[in-house]
Amino acid sequence: MKKLINKTENLVKESLAGVAAAHADLVKVHYDPNFVVRIDAPVRGKVAIISGGGSGHEPMHGGFVGRGMLDAACPGDVFTSPTPDQMEAATKAVDGGAGVLHIVKNYTGDILNFEMAAELCQAAGIEVAAVVIDDDVAVKDSLYTAGRRGVGTTVLAEKICGAAAERGDNLAKVVDVCRKVNANGRTMGMALTSCTVPAAGRPTFEISDTEMEIGIGIHGEPGRERMALKPAKEIVEMMANVILSDLPFKSGDQVIVMVNGMGATPLMELYLVYNELNKICQAKGITIVRQLVGNYITSLDMAGCSITLLKVDEELLTLWDAPVHTPALRWGV
Amino acid sequence: MKKLINKTENLVKESLAGVAAAHADLVKVHYDPNFVVRIDAPVRGKVAIISGGGSGHEPMHGGFVGRGMLDAACPGDVFTSPTPDQMEAATKAVDGGAGVLHIVKNYTGDILNFEMAAELCQAAGIEVAAVVIDDDVAVKDSLYTAGRRGVGTTVLAEKICGAAAERGDNLAKVVDVCRKVNANGRTMGMALTSCTVPAAGRPTFEISDTEMEIGIGIHGEPGRERMALKPAKEIVEMMANVILSDLPFKSGDQVIVMVNGMGATPLMELYLVYNELNKICQAKGITIVRQLVGNYITSLDMAGCSITLLKVDEELLTLWDAPVHTPALRWGV
Repeated sequence: MKKLINKTENLVKESLAGVAAAHADLVKVHYDPNFVVRIDAPVRGKVAIISGGGSGHEPMHGGFVGRGMLDAACPGDVFTSPTPDQMEAATKAVDGGAGVLHIVKNYTGDILNFEMAAELCQAAGIEVAAVVIDDDVAVKDSLYTAGRRGVGTTVLAEKICGAAAERGDNLAKVVDVCRKVNANGRTMGMALTSCTVPAAGRPTFEISDTEMEIGIGIHGEPGRERMALKPAKEIVEMMANVILSDLPFKSGDQVIVMVNGMGATPLMELYLVYNELNKICQAKGITIVRQLVGNYITSLDMAGCSITLLKVDEELLTLWDAPVHTPALRWGV
Repeated sequence: MKKLINKTENLVKESLAGVAAAHADLVKVHYDPNFVVRIDAPVRGKVAIISGGGSGHEPMHGGFVGRGMLDAACPGDVFTSPTPDQMEAATKAVDGGAGVLHIVKNYTGDILNFEMAAELCQAAGIEVAAVVIDDDVAVKDSLYTAGRRGVGTTVLAEKICGAAAERGDNLAKVVDVCRKVNANGRTMGMALTSCTVPAAGRPTFEISDTEMEIGIGIHGEPGRERMALKPAKEIVEMMANVILSDLPFKSGDQVIVMVNGMGATPLMELYLVYNELNKICQAKGITIVRQLVGNYITSLDMAGCSITLLKVDEELLTLWDAPVHTPALRWGV
């Protein structure tokens, strides 16, 4: 295993210390339990938004803490759900009196732990709501998950809900916006190589030099199909076909697209993937109105990509365009 | 070789097509010869800035085209210098009557081809100046290069000179600023793994599972030393010692730091590296006033990182903070 780390057991904390040092103008990091909060939290009268999950998917979630996006992020160990005390402490730290939304990716551990934290906070008089993101069209049930996994749409939901909270929407409205994003977002991923979890020290799965895995999860969970590596054009067509037919997306739709690298994919390949996807959307009369191309929800050092399409209306697009200032996403400021 | 590509020979063009489609609001891509220009080029009365080099280092340089940074970028084939006709066409396309600065990384092919293009443009009546970036402290001479290689400081120079041009500095002044950045910037890189050039189809160099290469170049050129993999703390100390003693940086200095991923390095590792570097700087009385942590000048799918320190004064810091709006770097707008 080749990684730029010291002791495996200190990786998450030492990485968080780097985030704290690099972005002291944007975020503050708390330890034991670990969570990242925006520097001006709690913001009085604003709905607070928290997400979290296993580490190893950076910049998600800690890189999305800041004005116009998350109020806090709770990083677990690598690929391990954060514990309820993290979400409880984060919720109490960011509650500004207008309630707290937990954006939870659909993994069984995440859901249980977020639920437990919510109960503890509600008992302390904080209004808490949760929305589960389950946008992965690749598989129905999976390792770690009943139902569809929560993947790329989470990034878009955090941005859009963050903007809704920032403009003063109440908790019920922010919840509605989050559900709307989840209802209109679809994602599928693929891997060329496995990731290597530091504590394991070896690749999560074996894959030959001539194969790829279509429909992979962000922890290296099995996908739909292991098959021979194909040209990017065919790979993108396979993924887009599943995504587009699922909602379904149709001619006249406006979409935000995210072409996301799994961690070890060169940016020039991601742009090539975007080019193929753009041609498919054009041919189907679907207009890409905004896009992200880069590493946003990663899987450590996995090579591969995921494609997310979010159908948007005027409301979601306006919220997308609102200013955001976080370590990993910034515009309008 | 596992890559998200179609035909190797079309990779650069298809990737550029993705950039063009994704960032039509910021840049325009020309083909045959290939170059990327900001959408509003030529900007009348403004010094234009061009950089370029082999592809495979994305987001550098195409991702840095836009307001407040580059006017054009000329991408060669992967790890291959662009040809003079690319720089000639780009120079003519962006010249707004105030002259054009070529920011050239110190690689022999790049320098020769930029020089030839400059002569052709000067013959056509365009004022052209060039500044060569040679900030790599790892080795004196190298494969492809006489003298020090041009690496991470190039990114910072493009941002800072872009701001100088944007505020209306004349060509002589922008050249001065660029030379000042180069004189005050130092970089060193390291690799855990080799990259794989698509046209070669196999890793550029062999390295065992227990070794790393200190002082690597961005094309996988040999570095200072092949040695057993060490904890990140020791790796960063080794690199920082060479960088800090070279300028030398000293107590009281203010620096902009870039902790740059080579392409396949998880962000959480880069933040861990930043944490180690920050501790070293603090102990030496050097203040990190701004920082970039992420993938900015990559080497395809290489795992590893580089560290750049740029000593800044009020002028350089003001230029750094000026608004920038490019595909890969954006703030203040």
